[in-house]
Amino acid sequence: MRVYKNPNKSDWNTLIKRPILEQQDLDDIVIDILKDVKNNKDQALFKYAEKFDKTKLDTIQIDANEIETAKNQLPQDLKNAINLAKQNIETFHKSQKEKEQIIETTKGVKCWRRSVGIEKVGLYIPGGSAPLFSTILMLGIPAQLAGCKEIILCSPPNKEGHINPAILYTANLVGISKIYKVGGAQAIAAMAYGTESIPQVYKIFGPGNQFVTKAKELIQQQGVAIDMPAGPSEVLVIADKTSNPEFVAADLLSQAEHGADSQVILVSDDENIINQTIAELDKQLSQLPRKAIAEKALKISRAIQLNSINECIEFSNLYAPEHLIIATDNASDYIEHITNAGSVFLGKYSCESAGDYASGTNHTLPTNGYARNYSGVSLDSFVKKITFQNLNKEGIKNIGPAIELMAEAEGLDAHKNAVTLRLKQINNV
Amino acid sequence: MRVYKNPNKSDWNTLIKRPILEQQDLDDIVIDILKDVKNNKDQALFKYAEKFDKTKLDTIQIDANEIETAKNQLPQDLKNAINLAKQNIETFHKSQKEKEQIIETTKGVKCWRRSVGIEKVGLYIPGGSAPLFSTILMLGIPAQLAGCKEIILCSPPNKEGHINPAILYTANLVGISKIYKVGGAQAIAAMAYGTESIPQVYKIFGPGNQFVTKAKELIQQQGVAIDMPAGPSEVLVIADKTSNPEFVAADLLSQAEHGADSQVILVSDDENIINQTIAELDKQLSQLPRKAIAEKALKISRAIQLNSINECIEFSNLYAPEHLIIATDNASDYIEHITNAGSVFLGKYSCESAGDYASGTNHTLPTNGYARNYSGVSLDSFVKKITFQNLNKEGIKNIGPAIELMAEAEGLDAHKNAVTLRLKQINNV
Repeated sequence: MRVYKNPNKSDWNTLIKRPILEQQDLDDIVIDILKDVKNNKDQALFKYAEKFDKTKLDTIQIDANEIETAKNQLPQDLKNAINLAKQNIETFHKSQKEKEQIIETTKGVKCWRRSVGIEKVGLYIPGGSAPLFSTILMLGIPAQLAGCKEIILCSPPNKEGHINPAILYTANLVGISKIYKVGGAQAIAAMAYGTESIPQVYKIFGPGNQFVTKAKELIQQQGVAIDMPAGPSEVLVIADKTSNPEFVAADLLSQAEHGADSQVILVSDDENIINQTIAELDKQLSQLPRKAIAEKALKISRAIQLNSINECIEFSNLYAPEHLIIATDNASDYIEHITNAGSVFLGKYSCESAGDYASGTNHTLPTNGYARNYSGVSLDSFVKKITFQNLNKEGIKNIGPAIELMAEAEGLDAHKNAVTLRLKQINNV
Repeated sequence: MRVYKNPNKSDWNTLIKRPILEQQDLDDIVIDILKDVKNNKDQALFKYAEKFDKTKLDTIQIDANEIETAKNQLPQDLKNAINLAKQNIETFHKSQKEKEQIIETTKGVKCWRRSVGIEKVGLYIPGGSAPLFSTILMLGIPAQLAGCKEIILCSPPNKEGHINPAILYTANLVGISKIYKVGGAQAIAAMAYGTESIPQVYKIFGPGNQFVTKAKELIQQQGVAIDMPAGPSEVLVIADKTSNPEFVAADLLSQAEHGADSQVILVSDDENIINQTIAELDKQLSQLPRKAIAEKALKISRAIQLNSINECIEFSNLYAPEHLIIATDNASDYIEHITNAGSVFLGKYSCESAGDYASGTNHTLPTNGYARNYSGVSLDSFVKKITFQNLNKEGIKNIGPAIELMAEAEGLDAHKNAVTLRLKQINNV
């Protein structure tokens, strides 16, 4: 972790830079996979399972027996933990339901919005070393609350052709029954175009590797919506002399273990806290199973000493972190000043892990500075808000003349005429 | 307008097809413009003003005098009309403000969301034959309500180097002072990258031609957010024997006059209404200044007779229209059944023009079937919803053990450790 002491503001734009990813030129590879799945459907999926997942599948869809087996395989305490997380996530996302409010903007003119679930959504859950069943809670629960009619899930099989039981258990728990053994760009293609086994969806959610990300970017240009643009995970911690360096180090490491390209930033007005945190990092790092990954992430990470906590907040707003932890005793004092962040953790007991798993907030958040212009996933992500309006005679009489003038000034006479004919009819009766 | 009588459901997928646009291959042209503006900034903008707008500009930004002049040029009745529209749009969009609700998901675990305006937004307003000042209301008003700190506007100049006074008046009315004489892909590039005159923004809104659309698509891949993907405007009208064919025809024409590629669809359970509407179309068309455009749009449009109004709704949901007019007496009975639409107009006096200008709803809506997976522009489009959480000792004690189990099962030990250390400290005190 490189330390910067009171850098000039003119250098801040350099300090907020994310690590530059080695962008492999994946376009051609992913375009070929998309085309192949579009044309050859299931046949292409079987082929890619052999090629990339090293398994020969009989069927693509998980059957009910596999789910029953998974339920029995999972230890009860883990099931209880998942259930607790589910309840909190449900409670928080339920509170995001918008009440329908009919607004009479002018006498006789009523306008309102209705939230309607996106009919068909697809969730992608990566496989690999860690079975990210927590992401199923984060995506499946709001999808159900939103009233999405068809919710499907794709996840890559292991070499034995199976999907991790924690994934099957969690999917089943949140009411997702259509689960498919497909990973990578081919999974995104299958959900975007549909195959014999996999239904086509209107919006695709979920994290993934570079192939998945590229596939999502490409299918977005073809009319399928996606949750948000992707980038490596990151945390920015603001600490002062009231912070606990042991906790701060643990939070930085829990981000660093995600991947070698994860970025962790410590910002503080206190030199001691920075030094103590760095000492704690070394101590805790040696204990971690994912030490090698976290070590790489720390190499591209930064500790920045600034003049005041207000300046730290200013820096954070410029950086626009996915996760922002304000590890100070008076963390709540800064709420009003936070303009760019995905999710904010206030005070010493609000660790990022809480939001990653079980507090109730969503962990699918904007990375890579996208917190400047994107929100994290919420109930909103799974609905369309359709506007409705109802004008009665009085309503059209009240606003009709204004519409006629504006339409005429825009040179749109048929727009004007639609009003004129109605006003004429009302006046003639 | 081609008439289809009781088509088979198997043919519906053909009937919902949008006209295929002659997609010029604009990629190379637009990529060059983007690069040029990125590298040469204002200098490139002056060059493109000469090339595309046929005008030699001295400065890019509109000065205060030009705005004052515009105010005096505009007739008072048009100003009054714009003011009335502004009030209704303000009232409706204000109602979309989300109240902050702190949710205690588990004792000691508090979660909430705060809506924070996107700091810097850019609005694009096309020039050309019609000065679309109404779009400034639709974008500028929610941007102000959202608390966006910097709101800028680009619109192409005419040959004399001026911008239409209605555009300047309306921009000033909604509090936008930074107005730039730039059009086309170069305007999108300028707002995405920033130039000497034009500040860089985080999200770009507004309609435009194929060059503008392509530029927005490309800069979205570079991290700048956009309002939504674009396509030609469209309306679907559902009519029955209670509908007024004169009004229905007027509504169809007010869509058709937008452009030769606009699509208008009439769906009805009543043959007479279809025939009467077609007769009315002929009658009204001959009176329109934009007759040539509307005539072309009608050529690619459809009247479809189905068995019942419920079937008409089913068809509409499959089509997912930008605008849906239910022109029947009992229109409100169908609200619950509408799953895919941008904005819905209920009953005979709710003409599309009302929503286009002055009822209060937004007219920036998803076209081309995007109503399946996108919402129209609203206050939401101008904010990020940042999640916050605060756990006290009791909170981390209540959910900590569940987090530890889940993190361990996902193989993320540093995530677990961030909780373990806190639980230890609490138990030791």
